[in-house]
Amino acid sequence: MSDNSKKELEEGTAFTPRFDKDGLIPCITTSAGSGEVLMFAWMNREALEKSLETGEAWYWSRSRNALWHKGTTSGFTQKIISMKTDCDQDCIWIGVEVSGPEAACHTGRQSCFYRSVELGKKATKLAFTRADKIFDPKKVYGD
Amino acid sequence: MSDNSKKELEEGTAFTPRFDKDGLIPCITTSAGSGEVLMFAWMNREALEKSLETGEAWYWSRSRNALWHKGTTSGFTQKIISMKTDCDQDCIWIGVEVSGPEAACHTGRQSCFYRSVELGKKATKLAFTRADKIFDPKKVYGD
Repeated sequence: MSDNSKKELEEGTAFTPRFDKDGLIPCITTSAGSGEVLMFAWMNREALEKSLETGEAWYWSRSRNALWHKGTTSGFTQKIISMKTDCDQDCIWIGVEVSGPEAACHTGRQSCFYRSVELGKKATKLAFTRADKIFDPKKVYGD
Repeated sequence: MSDNSKKELEEGTAFTPRFDKDGLIPCITTSAGSGEVLMFAWMNREALEKSLETGEAWYWSRSRNALWHKGTTSGFTQKIISMKTDCDQDCIWIGVEVSGPEAACHTGRQSCFYRSVELGKKATKLAFTRADKIFDPKKVYGD
């Protein structure tokens, strides 16, 4: 990358998101209210465009290889309150309001980050920090 | 993935981080104090192990193709206060205390996310939300 294009990318006002070789850009999703990290997912160009068009979060599901309107099944859609990009425009951060109870994780929890890594030289254990499920995934998604 | 291994991954207490095909796992870094997202980077297994061993953030620099102890040059190292993983253990979230002024971005700013995307159908513009530089990158990193 030339010095000029690096400068424009980092200090300019043109939104030029950089997708990876698979056409994806990582997205960090936080609660617009509490700032809590709710989830981490991926967007392709179409998901990003649909997010902007509709004002709701759309992602690209790598496991299902499909566009994914968050909340279609569960009803817990994510209204986008803010969107930021980082210095080199290869990451998206959205702040969202979840419709209904704030549940972002398919396991039924508020956040996907419900377990802490026990710090130390050989960290092999996780401790649940948010064991409570807000909804029953079997009821919402079926078996 | 079998139902059992999925269950263990999501509901178990064994920390079994899943690296991608390039041997990397994404890492979200927030301020342990304010919760602000400071940066987004990648770790390989060695970076994750060094982070756990030293209690400071180590990443894998994809541009330099090298292990990267954050703060080696700038002095702004990141003390890891908390580490979490997500439901399917393919993302790491660390909460850090930055030594010295809280500056995580190589452009001199507190956070790499210093520009908002103007929301709307055709979002092409960025607006600076945090224009202030905490340090002068030329003085810290050289030209």
